[in-house]
Amino acid sequence: MSCVFCKIIARQLPGYIIAEDEDTIVFVSLEGHPIVAPKEHIADIFGLNDRLAATITKTARKVARATKEGLAADGIYITQTNGLAAGQSVFHYHMHVYPKWSDGRRLDRDHESRKTTMEKVRALLQSQN
Amino acid sequence: MSCVFCKIIARQLPGYIIAEDEDTIVFVSLEGHPIVAPKEHIADIFGLNDRLAATITKTARKVARATKEGLAADGIYITQTNGLAAGQSVFHYHMHVYPKWSDGRRLDRDHESRKTTMEKVRALLQSQN
Repeated sequence: MSCVFCKIIARQLPGYIIAEDEDTIVFVSLEGHPIVAPKEHIADIFGLNDRLAATITKTARKVARATKEGLAADGIYITQTNGLAAGQSVFHYHMHVYPKWSDGRRLDRDHESRKTTMEKVRALLQSQN
Repeated sequence: MSCVFCKIIARQLPGYIIAEDEDTIVFVSLEGHPIVAPKEHIADIFGLNDRLAATITKTARKVARATKEGLAADGIYITQTNGLAAGQSVFHYHMHVYPKWSDGRRLDRDHESRKTTMEKVRALLQSQN
């Protein structure tokens, strides 16, 4: 297993895991924002089927809301890359959920900040259920 | 009706419409790439329900594939903005589907280029059915 996301899912690498269910996992990226991915190793959007795509979308919507509320963000920017030419660096499908603030500030990348993001987004996700 | 996307959907403004069905519309943006949107006026991701979110996702996957193949792109970059702080400029939910090429070239914004993109992506979408 060489995929870094598969290793995080399998707890072979440490990760700030926010939530998971049967099909999806949510964790904090190295940049500090949440990432939503399927547990199954699928390289990109072209490998998804309807059911899994709908499930990931549903998780991403919950994470968008929890990120906005948990981090008191003013907006949410979502990106998803397919292929090296599109900037994809980990070839396991994933959506980036970036909180955005009107004053332009950004998330810090240090461990304490990532842990705080994990805890705040997790708390909001749990309160949605 | 003040929403520019609603006006394109209602044919009150000209648009390079690639495809549409009961719930979604696909057209070429001013920048030259395809945009996927619900026909219903919903401001952002927070206003979607499960059914519509899944439907838009399904359309977006088809458009991603058709854009990659129709425009011979090397990758596909998808973005979606929620809120002014996230760069949202039209407050009607939409996904940008950007073709990306390894040599870094970009789509032209002139009418002829947008028309060509419309025709090529439409042809591929139709061949998928």
